Amino acid sequence: MSIEIITIGDELLIGQVTDTNSAWMSRQLTAVMMPIVQHTSIHDDAEQIKKAVNAALERADVVLLTGGLGPTKDDITKHTLCEIFSTRLVHSQEVEDNINRLWYQRNRKVINPLTATQALVPENCEVIQNEVGTAPIMLWEWDNDDKKKILISMPGVPYEMQYAITNHVIPRLQQEFPNETIALHHTTIVEGIPESALALQLEQWETSLPDYMHLAYLPAQGLVRLRLDAVSKQYSQDELRQQLDQQVTQLTDILGDAIIAQEDDALEVVLGKILKSKGQTIATAESCTGGTIASLLAKHAGSSEFYLGSVVSYSNEVKHNVLGVSLSDLEQYGAVSEPVVRQMAEGARRVVGADWALATSGIAGPGGGTADKPVGTIWIAVSGPDGTTAKCLHLGTLREQNILRTTQSILAMAIRMIR
Amino acid sequence: MSIEIITIGDELLIGQVTDTNSAWMSRQLTAVMMPIVQHTSIHDDAEQIKKAVNAALERADVVLLTGGLGPTKDDITKHTLCEIFSTRLVHSQEVEDNINRLWYQRNRKVINPLTATQALVPENCEVIQNEVGTAPIMLWEWDNDDKKKILISMPGVPYEMQYAITNHVIPRLQQEFPNETIALHHTTIVEGIPESALALQLEQWETSLPDYMHLAYLPAQGLVRLRLDAVSKQYSQDELRQQLDQQVTQLTDILGDAIIAQEDDALEVVLGKILKSKGQTIATAESCTGGTIASLLAKHAGSSEFYLGSVVSYSNEVKHNVLGVSLSDLEQYGAVSEPVVRQMAEGARRVVGADWALATSGIAGPGGGTADKPVGTIWIAVSGPDGTTAKCLHLGTLREQNILRTTQSILAMAIRMIR
Repeated sequence: MSIEIITIGDELLIGQVTDTNSAWMSRQLTAVMMPIVQHTSIHDDAEQIKKAVNAALERADVVLLTGGLGPTKDDITKHTLCEIFSTRLVHSQEVEDNINRLWYQRNRKVINPLTATQALVPENCEVIQNEVGTAPIMLWEWDNDDKKKILISMPGVPYEMQYAITNHVIPRLQQEFPNETIALHHTTIVEGIPESALALQLEQWETSLPDYMHLAYLPAQGLVRLRLDAVSKQYSQDELRQQLDQQVTQLTDILGDAIIAQEDDALEVVLGKILKSKGQTIATAESCTGGTIASLLAKHAGSSEFYLGSVVSYSNEVKHNVLGVSLSDLEQYGAVSEPVVRQMAEGARRVVGADWALATSGIAGPGGGTADKPVGTIWIAVSGPDGTTAKCLHLGTLREQNILRTTQSILAMAIRMIR
Repeated sequence: MSIEIITIGDELLIGQVTDTNSAWMSRQLTAVMMPIVQHTSIHDDAEQIKKAVNAALERADVVLLTGGLGPTKDDITKHTLCEIFSTRLVHSQEVEDNINRLWYQRNRKVINPLTATQALVPENCEVIQNEVGTAPIMLWEWDNDDKKKILISMPGVPYEMQYAITNHVIPRLQQEFPNETIALHHTTIVEGIPESALALQLEQWETSLPDYMHLAYLPAQGLVRLRLDAVSKQYSQDELRQQLDQQVTQLTDILGDAIIAQEDDALEVVLGKILKSKGQTIATAESCTGGTIASLLAKHAGSSEFYLGSVVSYSNEVKHNVLGVSLSDLEQYGAVSEPVVRQMAEGARRVVGADWALATSGIAGPGGGTADKPVGTIWIAVSGPDGTTAKCLHLGTLREQNILRTTQSILAMAIRMIR
């Protein structure tokens, strides 16, 4: 079986909203071995929706739509689906009850007439209740030349779509399309080797891979994620897993210390797991990264087990008053210097009372550079039970890129030191 | 003229990477009045690339491709373009010189053989130098039934693509397709009214809009962005601007205090502009948001003019030791309480030495809730020269959603108070 995703909304095509739904859905569906053929984003336009749906149905067995189900004028997906499936809107008491229940929970007792229109559904679709929002989920299932086809339309609000995929769409598709093909993936994260050098180093091994295995290179922010895919109808899941593991062992032997992690997790998740396994804690002192490392450490559930807190010392006063950085060092060496970043890390470790602390101080740009310290000069330090290590990064001139790259570099440095 | 964007890469279809390129390009192109018809993401697969390119060329005048130009085996875009345009790869000395220059800058003197293959380009394309990366940009221009068609292939690395769009693609397209249609947009950000209630409130005004104007509703994280589009060949840019401004004035009269901003900026940018205009500064004390507000305030160039620093007090020790929150209040009322969030805000204002401070303390979930304080119970406070205001949010059970929603709520609260 194969799936296509169509996201609907003018806001996507003018770039006001980034389509994060397609990637999220693809991740979930790939994990249960349902391959995605294509993502398409189109306008709230009936003709365009019809053409995109028909084209997708030619390529895939299942078409998933999100967006255009709101109660306002610009939302036309439901009406267009009625045209596609030659039907009309009818009132659903079940949907109205669901909407009333949600509005009652949210402390508004009487729903307004526009929200009430959400209870109108296409007569020939199968309605799936949306337990977390007012727009119902609509499903059509039919046969085309003895091939089963399914179309599902969901709201574009990410958490409503996510709830629908997890609780309704995946279970239903698993039931409708029992698996034949096995697809397994393994990701190895490498730091410190550029993509092309890595490819040369791996050339011989990569060429020797069986034809049902494939290596993909995903470079980003100074890291390369190597994803090894194994797709087969011939082997059982256990057999394929074993073969994949053997290849990963060979890959690991070739790359050695350049490997940061053997999982497709964000680096802060990798670091969090290491800290949890050791029962240790961490803090950050951030200047140029401005709390980005803190927000990543705090983002995931359970982070309070290892993450205690941070000081974002954007001004020199905070560096001195809160973190205890020496005023004379700030004056003599400047805020972007080895002595200052070391004292920031040590100060955060002391003030927050953590086993480890990460510190950053640099010129993220676009302004603020000098001949001595051009934009992209960034000091990072990791302080721990055995002392403090600092290093200087020489990055580019793009602010956002510099912040992201610094964050990944210091997380990689911490993983190496703490592990 | 019209444009389609095709992003190429298996990583997009398995959801390992979210396609942010399409939204970024669409934003830049829309700003110069070049409308985008469709976004398509496809695999590194020659047949699929050919079909997608042909379909896009039927709908649009210009097709922009990103991705699949790396030096490794999984990158096949360049070879496929040779098939589409019936040509072969030839060596370009100009591209090789550019690659050598970049590698010299990055302190690696001899390029490796794989990177050297980046200097091979399709014989019949126009090569545009990529000043920030090793993969060249390729352009084809031809006539199809007297209609001009252009295809441009760019690297998928976001900052390389961004450099190409800004410095090469937009200037070239402006030259090739002088503007006929004028398209203007205005965004008004509204807080505190659900989308459907807003639509009812605006119904009469919205119905009276001329047919070349259109209102779109973009709800997200407790805000609704109302985007008013005006698209016309009939009026000059000045005339259309004047008409749009008149409609915005009417909209503003209807919505009054519910309006947070009259620009399509992130709320932290709106807040930053207000602070800069007043010459005032801000700090944050964050518990459940874990540095997210700090990282947003620090994200944009020039933020050091108004943003001084933050304390992320994830643990109670940091709340007490660094921010001076009373231990007895922490014990009596708990960390998620009005007295604690007020003391956090006041402590951050004092410790950082800022005019204003924002504080958050809540149960983001998924764990940690009690009968008294279920997951989603979040206290926020804004402290300023005239005292401190606190309020309690009652959000849902999704951690990431709660962090984002809290961040938007407190930024909106600060904008209202400081303005």
